[in-house]
Amino acid sequence: MGVSNKFVTIKHNIDGAPAESDFELRTADLSLAVLNGSNDVIVKNLYVSIDPYQLNRMKKQSASQTAINFSTRVAPGDAIDAYGVGRVVESDHPEFATDDYVVGLLGWEEYSVVKGGIMLRKIGSMEFPLSFHAGILGLSGLTAYGGFFNVSKPKKGEKVFVSAASGSVGNLVGQFAKLHGCYVVGCAGSRAKVELLKDQLGFDYAFNYKDEVDLKAALKRYFPDGIDIYFDNVGGEMLEAAVANMNTFGRVALCGVISEYTDTRRRAVPDMLDVVYKRISINGFLAADHMHLFSDFISITSDHLRHKRMHAVEDISQGLVSVPGAFVGIFRGDNVGKKLVQVAQTCD
Amino acid sequence: MGVSNKFVTIKHNIDGAPAESDFELRTADLSLAVLNGSNDVIVKNLYVSIDPYQLNRMKKQSASQTAINFSTRVAPGDAIDAYGVGRVVESDHPEFATDDYVVGLLGWEEYSVVKGGIMLRKIGSMEFPLSFHAGILGLSGLTAYGGFFNVSKPKKGEKVFVSAASGSVGNLVGQFAKLHGCYVVGCAGSRAKVELLKDQLGFDYAFNYKDEVDLKAALKRYFPDGIDIYFDNVGGEMLEAAVANMNTFGRVALCGVISEYTDTRRRAVPDMLDVVYKRISINGFLAADHMHLFSDFISITSDHLRHKRMHAVEDISQGLVSVPGAFVGIFRGDNVGKKLVQVAQTCD
Repeated sequence: MGVSNKFVTIKHNIDGAPAESDFELRTADLSLAVLNGSNDVIVKNLYVSIDPYQLNRMKKQSASQTAINFSTRVAPGDAIDAYGVGRVVESDHPEFATDDYVVGLLGWEEYSVVKGGIMLRKIGSMEFPLSFHAGILGLSGLTAYGGFFNVSKPKKGEKVFVSAASGSVGNLVGQFAKLHGCYVVGCAGSRAKVELLKDQLGFDYAFNYKDEVDLKAALKRYFPDGIDIYFDNVGGEMLEAAVANMNTFGRVALCGVISEYTDTRRRAVPDMLDVVYKRISINGFLAADHMHLFSDFISITSDHLRHKRMHAVEDISQGLVSVPGAFVGIFRGDNVGKKLVQVAQTCD
Repeated sequence: MGVSNKFVTIKHNIDGAPAESDFELRTADLSLAVLNGSNDVIVKNLYVSIDPYQLNRMKKQSASQTAINFSTRVAPGDAIDAYGVGRVVESDHPEFATDDYVVGLLGWEEYSVVKGGIMLRKIGSMEFPLSFHAGILGLSGLTAYGGFFNVSKPKKGEKVFVSAASGSVGNLVGQFAKLHGCYVVGCAGSRAKVELLKDQLGFDYAFNYKDEVDLKAALKRYFPDGIDIYFDNVGGEMLEAAVANMNTFGRVALCGVISEYTDTRRRAVPDMLDVVYKRISINGFLAADHMHLFSDFISITSDHLRHKRMHAVEDISQGLVSVPGAFVGIFRGDNVGKKLVQVAQTCD
């Protein structure tokens, strides 16, 4: 048995900000049979993650060439792998059976073939909505957890600044930091996002960076005693302003550089003299480096969710056709919280 | 009894490259008596260290305001403290007696009063020339040792790049790295310095950065397998080129940013996207953070010197009057190795 498998691809490499017209939906025939001994698993996708890093894979020349497997380049016409949740339709893998719900590296497509079942995990319990496993309990969550606890090494009472704080990772960093006893300020790009951070997610303060003419002065106002940890999702001027306001032995967890994704000429220009004298540590990281923390992360985060100490903020669009718009919107700041596309209904 | 104590000071704050005319010698009366119970020690200075970081203290606005005591600002007319070696002429401190040789925070002056004997150390043995204690066995040595071993955490076989490699710290980093079994390439600003690194200090390769039109391409040539550790003394374009050539999990030990000292508009612009994807760690540090390693550092380095596994490269000018010229020369790359001024003869 076979299906006609719809997938999203790029028409050409993208340099600069993406537009919906850079993408197209294509169709490929897919056999729903798996070879004996292959360990392959065929998954019908339910929720797929929409993440800004994908843009780096679509460029002609990409820093991500040096990165781990799932960040390799995408050529025009290629299917685009992406983290997501789905249901097994066929499996040659002993750990996965038909109708199991799974999470892992699927794709912006209706069906994904997971070769050898690599990196696939079974969703053991239906305690939380399935979509959570593509966000707060998925790679976004692990990125926040690993980056905050393992890279930043926070101490109770430390002062934490998060940029893109209403985004998929930022909002979780802020929540983890509050639960850890830190003082937390986030910045975001709209009044509604700022309200969300303060009123619903427990940030001590939040501000709209678009309202600030002088980012250094703004951070000085929110951090009169300086910043100990900066969880950086944006790079550029915000990184510069944060370094200027950092305390000695401050740490920057460099998670993303969205200001550079769409314009390679933009560069963060932190004052390296500050970095020396204040003994600041700037650390790039990827979620993949923290996979060994996954089960701890899941059990701790599930417990926080169970007791309403953490909240999942999701922004879900419907249908594979909405993927390009969802992706393009991320760079305009359209999303609030974790951006997902629901490719199919759970009960289909 | 008193003396007329000559000291070097700045006439005005210095922004940009220093000139000898920015400095003057002044004289102040100094009593050679110490108060009972003060623990003060009066030292006749023999060798004083000439270091680029001093320029940051002479600026109007300085990153070093945030730094540890010995890096606080210098006002016009102030005596300028500096690391050095001297002989005790008067002491109220139980650990120091007249005629003891000592090393610590003295000054660009003939005599220094070390309040409470703070940070002063007695030179226990005359096995090595006294000047070594102001350089290879002093703060420069500790900076190289702490920065290389404690900040960069090198493994045998790793590939190490050192900028300003013939300078006071750089040449020692390269020597430590070779002894640790690393592949080491240094850059410097003259043919003679390059020869020194290769022929006398055992660097695998060295190059004159002034001969290179494309620093990224140059580093690619010397590090076909990438850089694991970059010991950065200069910042700016060299930092950018090094980050572009770094391997995953590469480490930058940020020791100095001499390109920024004389021109605050110059900024390193490493690609932060590279920092994320390659999980690079950029760490500012000061020797002061590694004081706990001092006795290990001294014993290990002394042993290397004793067995001719390490070499002290010194560049010594004579007389306090030569301090401004020696200091200004550092920013032109005049010095080879550790720049010192001999303020008085040992036997005076």
